[in-house]
Amino acid sequence: MTTLTDATHDPALRSWVASANEAGADFPVQNLPFGRMRPKGSDDAWRIGVAIGDQVLDLRLAREQCPWSGEVSAWLAPLADGDLNAFMVLGRPAWRGLRAALSAALAEGSEQSPFLELCLLLQSQCEMSLPCRIGDYTDFYAGIHHATTIGKLFRPDNPLLPNYKWVPIGYHGRASSIGLGGAIKRPSGQTKDAGDAAPVFGPCQRLDYELEVGAFVGRANALGEPVPIGEAEDALFGLVLLNDWSARDMQAWEYQPLGPFLAKSFASSISPWIVTMDALAPYRRPFTRPDGDPQPLPYLDSPFNREAGAIDITLEVWLQSAVMRTAGQAAVRLSQSNLTDAYWTWAQLLTHHASNGCNLQAGDLLGSGTISGPKPGTYASLMELSSNGKSPITLPGGESRSFLQDGDTVTLRAHCASPGAVRIGLGEVSGTIVS
Amino acid sequence: MTTLTDATHDPALRSWVASANEAGADFPVQNLPFGRMRPKGSDDAWRIGVAIGDQVLDLRLAREQCPWSGEVSAWLAPLADGDLNAFMVLGRPAWRGLRAALSAALAEGSEQSPFLELCLLLQSQCEMSLPCRIGDYTDFYAGIHHATTIGKLFRPDNPLLPNYKWVPIGYHGRASSIGLGGAIKRPSGQTKDAGDAAPVFGPCQRLDYELEVGAFVGRANALGEPVPIGEAEDALFGLVLLNDWSARDMQAWEYQPLGPFLAKSFASSISPWIVTMDALAPYRRPFTRPDGDPQPLPYLDSPFNREAGAIDITLEVWLQSAVMRTAGQAAVRLSQSNLTDAYWTWAQLLTHHASNGCNLQAGDLLGSGTISGPKPGTYASLMELSSNGKSPITLPGGESRSFLQDGDTVTLRAHCASPGAVRIGLGEVSGTIVS
Repeated sequence: MTTLTDATHDPALRSWVASANEAGADFPVQNLPFGRMRPKGSDDAWRIGVAIGDQVLDLRLAREQCPWSGEVSAWLAPLADGDLNAFMVLGRPAWRGLRAALSAALAEGSEQSPFLELCLLLQSQCEMSLPCRIGDYTDFYAGIHHATTIGKLFRPDNPLLPNYKWVPIGYHGRASSIGLGGAIKRPSGQTKDAGDAAPVFGPCQRLDYELEVGAFVGRANALGEPVPIGEAEDALFGLVLLNDWSARDMQAWEYQPLGPFLAKSFASSISPWIVTMDALAPYRRPFTRPDGDPQPLPYLDSPFNREAGAIDITLEVWLQSAVMRTAGQAAVRLSQSNLTDAYWTWAQLLTHHASNGCNLQAGDLLGSGTISGPKPGTYASLMELSSNGKSPITLPGGESRSFLQDGDTVTLRAHCASPGAVRIGLGEVSGTIVS
Repeated sequence: MTTLTDATHDPALRSWVASANEAGADFPVQNLPFGRMRPKGSDDAWRIGVAIGDQVLDLRLAREQCPWSGEVSAWLAPLADGDLNAFMVLGRPAWRGLRAALSAALAEGSEQSPFLELCLLLQSQCEMSLPCRIGDYTDFYAGIHHATTIGKLFRPDNPLLPNYKWVPIGYHGRASSIGLGGAIKRPSGQTKDAGDAAPVFGPCQRLDYELEVGAFVGRANALGEPVPIGEAEDALFGLVLLNDWSARDMQAWEYQPLGPFLAKSFASSISPWIVTMDALAPYRRPFTRPDGDPQPLPYLDSPFNREAGAIDITLEVWLQSAVMRTAGQAAVRLSQSNLTDAYWTWAQLLTHHASNGCNLQAGDLLGSGTISGPKPGTYASLMELSSNGKSPITLPGGESRSFLQDGDTVTLRAHCASPGAVRIGLGEVSGTIVS
């Protein structure tokens, strides 16, 4: 693992931005995630910023105000223009090079701090947009515990389909309706109860969240050119949290034979800060399969993937109902799970996706699928937690929930911790159901 | 139907471009489809052109060289820049206004002909690109005969699933791999024979085409704002042919439970000329359901949809193998079907798509699904024609085909004919399988 980490991951590194050094901060100087921002309430052009503590380093200002090497200045140019896709296509050497430059510039003792102090905004004073143009969005189904728990509801004896342990199951999602959360309008659609002769059209009655992680593709492959698994890591730019809002009643009626469609496409929400794969290096873990499970086919297998394909990210879902909010009651944590429970690594998902020659593009988003653990406290959707509505959960104020009610706020959070590394976080994504 | 057609559809109208007046021409002056082009072999900027006979009217040159009203000149501005999406968002008044202006300018006796003669290129001298930026691509399953014939292969007693006649079934497709045909690389992927313990990874052995029609969305709806069916027609810009290349063996192994994925995403091919919904007005037909079938739910029903929701388009698939090409043998027609066989209208597909609040954008592509008729000569895929490989078809030179072989060229063609209207065509899209 020593080859993965470098000076930018040094846990002793501290920033001259004081809030970055606070215990539990999501964005210490070891993180340096990218987001697309502008000052709140302004009509300024969008630019890319880097989160540091509770601040954002505005890379448009930083490029103008601070002396940089020619190489770093060239890397900053598309970011100053708010075009993260154009930075992505520069590839890993640029990603790592800029990371090293920003790490040095934001570290205690940096000679650039007098300039960069002028380029900081409080995160609370920033308006965020989607971090990049998302050409295509693909959602996978790599959460084997989720697939098993859901499968048991319908097929107790045979919860996983025969292809599950061989094929990284996935489907094309809707790119246009991806946002950063906020108000999530309850969708309407066709549903049909088992005993009814005909379906009805109306508001979804079984609205759910799904906790996922999203990966942004950074390096494109041409149509017809697969990506060998040995090259897949270099095509992955970074991760965000992803809430794959789901209308369970609509899904049950529509999904055969072509899969989920309107049950998902009304909204998907991601967290605004892309935590780069480079920042996640200290939290890589061996990727293993349970004894007796088939090993991945050769095109999905590599020594690196076995040694370090997994990533240790703690994932959490928090809920605050309207009643709780009014009562001043804090959100309650509904689940805690870990991305190491994914049955496939990001490299495997990307290589599989391109294995038929499908061209992936910088800015494409890959969803992990719902990452649940095997036990109730780790179930990352209400459908799992409530056994599809049969066993409602009880909230701290006494309310019960089978599915989401109007006014419910769902917040996803994630962080990484590892011996010999600082804690970093992915930030959060929040959405509130409105009628 | 009189309200649908206007002077631009007058069958007596002739063009000063002679080839546009030839019997059987796809692009008479009554058609006027849009494509994105530049002179072959040049590095010129892309611009939008309008096909007329065997020529293309270059709208960049036309805007510069010819006097137009201020309104028409403004409509032409984004087209001169090659940005069809920006023209689409101007809406139906602009689409109809420009159609009327181009019709008059290209008609016999036009005073603009001396200017516009300088703005014509032979189609054979043009390089074409995708006509617009396709944000999201959705493929429907509106071909009920296709769904029935395929369903019978696996469920003889119950070919259609219970939702089919209620829900316009569809799924998100892959936008990045949509092209204009040409060389289509045979994809590789996982397949598993029924008797085998494990899947294998290798080249697809059951490669197929699917004849579909594609519709481009022209008017966007905001996230959370459905499109009432009475407004759906105004959101539809025009139609193309669509070949939804399909890897049947990969599809069979991967598609449960989330639908087709890599079996489709390696390539989809569209014809380069978008024939506008306005051009198709004379070929509109009443939309009816067979006796005993459920009527559409209210959100998918309107008087206009019943009176004129269908479009009479004859659809054809032609095949020429490498052996036939070498022998100088012409392509053979494998099927002829008609878009009136679709179980849902374009307005219904669009309204259903947006019914959950999903935001459609100008340039989004909707596929009809495979449009087969009920009999073998109308089957619009090899899977249907060969009964999933059990009954190979015989080509004129004596070769047999269950699925596509390397070197096979598949060409889709379509045209409209109607009493009191001229024949217009959608052009064609061709693809040749390469290993």
